[in-house]
Amino acid sequence: MPIFAAKTALSVDIKTRDYTSAIQEFQKLLSHDCILTGAEEKERYGRDETEDLFFMPDIVLKPNNTEEVSRIMQICYEHNIPVTPRGAGTGLSGGALANRGGVVVSFEKMNRILEIDERNLQVTTEPGVITEVLQQAVKAKGLFYPPDPSSRGSCFIGGNIAENSGGPKAVKYGVVKDYVLNLEMVLPDGRVIWTGANVLKNATGYNLTQLVVGSEGTLGLVTKIVLRLIPHPKHDLLMLVPFNSLEKAGEAVSAIFRAGFTPSALELVEIDALKIVSRFVDSAVVPVTDEMEAHLVIEVDGNDVDVLMAEMEAIGTLLADYGCGDIFFADDAQQKAELWKLRRRVAEAVKIDGFTIEEDTVVPRANLPALIRGVKALGKQYQFQAVCYGHAGDGNLHVRIKKEGSKFSLNNPEVVPALRALFQLVHELGGTISGEHGIGLIQKEYMDIVQTPASIELMRGIKKVFDPKGILNSGKIFD
Amino acid sequence: MPIFAAKTALSVDIKTRDYTSAIQEFQKLLSHDCILTGAEEKERYGRDETEDLFFMPDIVLKPNNTEEVSRIMQICYEHNIPVTPRGAGTGLSGGALANRGGVVVSFEKMNRILEIDERNLQVTTEPGVITEVLQQAVKAKGLFYPPDPSSRGSCFIGGNIAENSGGPKAVKYGVVKDYVLNLEMVLPDGRVIWTGANVLKNATGYNLTQLVVGSEGTLGLVTKIVLRLIPHPKHDLLMLVPFNSLEKAGEAVSAIFRAGFTPSALELVEIDALKIVSRFVDSAVVPVTDEMEAHLVIEVDGNDVDVLMAEMEAIGTLLADYGCGDIFFADDAQQKAELWKLRRRVAEAVKIDGFTIEEDTVVPRANLPALIRGVKALGKQYQFQAVCYGHAGDGNLHVRIKKEGSKFSLNNPEVVPALRALFQLVHELGGTISGEHGIGLIQKEYMDIVQTPASIELMRGIKKVFDPKGILNSGKIFD
Repeated sequence: MPIFAAKTALSVDIKTRDYTSAIQEFQKLLSHDCILTGAEEKERYGRDETEDLFFMPDIVLKPNNTEEVSRIMQICYEHNIPVTPRGAGTGLSGGALANRGGVVVSFEKMNRILEIDERNLQVTTEPGVITEVLQQAVKAKGLFYPPDPSSRGSCFIGGNIAENSGGPKAVKYGVVKDYVLNLEMVLPDGRVIWTGANVLKNATGYNLTQLVVGSEGTLGLVTKIVLRLIPHPKHDLLMLVPFNSLEKAGEAVSAIFRAGFTPSALELVEIDALKIVSRFVDSAVVPVTDEMEAHLVIEVDGNDVDVLMAEMEAIGTLLADYGCGDIFFADDAQQKAELWKLRRRVAEAVKIDGFTIEEDTVVPRANLPALIRGVKALGKQYQFQAVCYGHAGDGNLHVRIKKEGSKFSLNNPEVVPALRALFQLVHELGGTISGEHGIGLIQKEYMDIVQTPASIELMRGIKKVFDPKGILNSGKIFD
Repeated sequence: MPIFAAKTALSVDIKTRDYTSAIQEFQKLLSHDCILTGAEEKERYGRDETEDLFFMPDIVLKPNNTEEVSRIMQICYEHNIPVTPRGAGTGLSGGALANRGGVVVSFEKMNRILEIDERNLQVTTEPGVITEVLQQAVKAKGLFYPPDPSSRGSCFIGGNIAENSGGPKAVKYGVVKDYVLNLEMVLPDGRVIWTGANVLKNATGYNLTQLVVGSEGTLGLVTKIVLRLIPHPKHDLLMLVPFNSLEKAGEAVSAIFRAGFTPSALELVEIDALKIVSRFVDSAVVPVTDEMEAHLVIEVDGNDVDVLMAEMEAIGTLLADYGCGDIFFADDAQQKAELWKLRRRVAEAVKIDGFTIEEDTVVPRANLPALIRGVKALGKQYQFQAVCYGHAGDGNLHVRIKKEGSKFSLNNPEVVPALRALFQLVHELGGTISGEHGIGLIQKEYMDIVQTPASIELMRGIKKVFDPKGILNSGKIFD
């Protein structure tokens, strides 16, 4: 098998690995089109959305059901083959990359919604369903699955489980972990377990479900997912509020909550990011002037439109104290959709514009202004440009960095000291280094800033309990 | 040291245990009144609210801060002394009982609310604060900590973390796990970690916070707790709805959610339980007639009282289809308080009335009628009387059992077969054996019904990672 540039430590010497007998076993299990070994067909499985990282897998497998996943793991366990599970490849921390080569298990064929249980407000799905497809399917029954990462039009629900994804609605409705009731999971040795039960409350032993959510595919391969749903709110209202001070916008965010409001989205976009994305999607829906520094995107939702109107008005009045400009109300579904499209495509647009290094900082909400100030100061100190945007209501600020001559951060001595300084600041502000993207490959060298050796030791111990041979997505989160 | 009837397997031979040198070390650390060794003063630390179980600890320690807890654990680790952490002793599964003797660490002196952070809507507290005290303290600032177990007037927030407690508000607001952001925890060897960060979103390695919540004090001793808060809703309305069919009441529960309503409480109380508690608290607020079989207690909350009135009316109309009787609206704060007092004291009242064996079943909400039917059928088959009540909106039904000649369930051959049959039914209905009380001592022999050997093996492995010597609350959840 041809092999390639894996930069991280390898627990198995992949150069000498012989897949011949394993492939024969895979061929007994899967049809021809579900086993990829050629370089060209494997190419796209070597990337995700993380910087410009590329790790070519040796073999890509596309199982169709739990039994096949279980058998794949038995074979890999027996042959000591590294396995990397993969959703849609939209991740931003490298979790789906085969950094040690071996087998990539792609869940693209396990894409069925198995049951929408309207009596219990639950959905059971396979991991390869696109998040937005799932959301639309349950919405057609009047139900709501809120977590909505920006990539929801292409990401898989299984990847969302792996990363404990958030998105704009998290501020009111919580993140993925708040909706997962139960998971069917294949352990590294091929055994199949359910992590919990399909119930709303569960105090029956350790919460394996919550341990697996956000574990970045390092503990097992999730093959079925049971999510709780809620009634879909009947109405939502959206407004865009310009500020001539980025910090003031940050201050306004926590003032909204202190006043007793809980918006269903509260996003912040710095003006530079907004200019870039407005060009990128060729939209003039957002007025942009030179004196503006940032916009807040504020949504409220509920079942009574008059109540929502009153809430929006009250929030608008409150924001005037923070020096906001003229508020733009999205009048109809089309304007709302255009505004959201702008917001959702910020990451893509600024990446193309050269802001290739994305960080996923999160701090207690009221510390946003201090974080924003700090980011700008660090930019001067370490000579990088930064644009900030993200889920301000959660204190979750994405910081996109552009630095002359440095397109990526992984093992890059030109960038690492700047990121260490940034994460040190985040830690001092009571925050942490990832709110919703995960640690994966690119953040693991900063884990020492926010985790004590004792905590890392516990995590390693847990990993070993699930995966004693270290074959499953090892080298992610920690070495 | 005097020792006592520990029925479970012991990993340390307590009969030959010599505490002399350990006690000398405790005496250097703690003042005289924080070390109890006399039988009389230790007596009350030998019980909780679980059946009539009693296990006398050898020593009771009352640390004042994290450093003392850490030092206690170092000493116990060195001397292989079993340790049982204890909150207020209101638990219903025996989690706080020293089933292996040794040291009980009581958190009663660590009872300070350390900070209410109004800017970030968070509270940091020590574990020995009474839950209702905490709720009132944050309510005074307009903030809301929703989880409210029936024992909230006496239980400790630390115990709530250990058991992942629920309560009536869970149906809308979730359980304890949904509010815990970060925990300071002393590991069994005395090291101190924080499990997370004080942020609303966190994708930074395994979710140790969520693993610890509900782990019943078997992984570490929680010494500080950071909880998120939400704005306190301005209004709530409460009504009581009688049904002449217990099953119909169960059906009505899931109909309410299917119609798009999310009450802030949706409780079911079987008429026998209501009769008992009405006598017990000498209240006539609830009309009870012979043709009634159950009541639903329904609360809605929010910021707009007109919206709430409309919701209550719509729910009332819907319930008419399920054959409800005359709805009783609680008119004022006093009536509401009396109704809630009735509901909260059901467990206590029925226990005194002879229903001493309490189970904490939970099923998908729509399966409640089948569960209720099953409980009654099993009662006939196994000759027990049962009253049902609980958090119907969550599918969480407490089943209190009275059986001639059997006051407890632990290791009781007269009761175990009946409970196995009950839990088998719960499992077949997609549910599990504990919704909010935990497994502790009394449910562990039923874990095999709902957990596969592989899952139990993972849990044991996790336990060993945190507590390699097995000194901390071992013999709970699993042997």
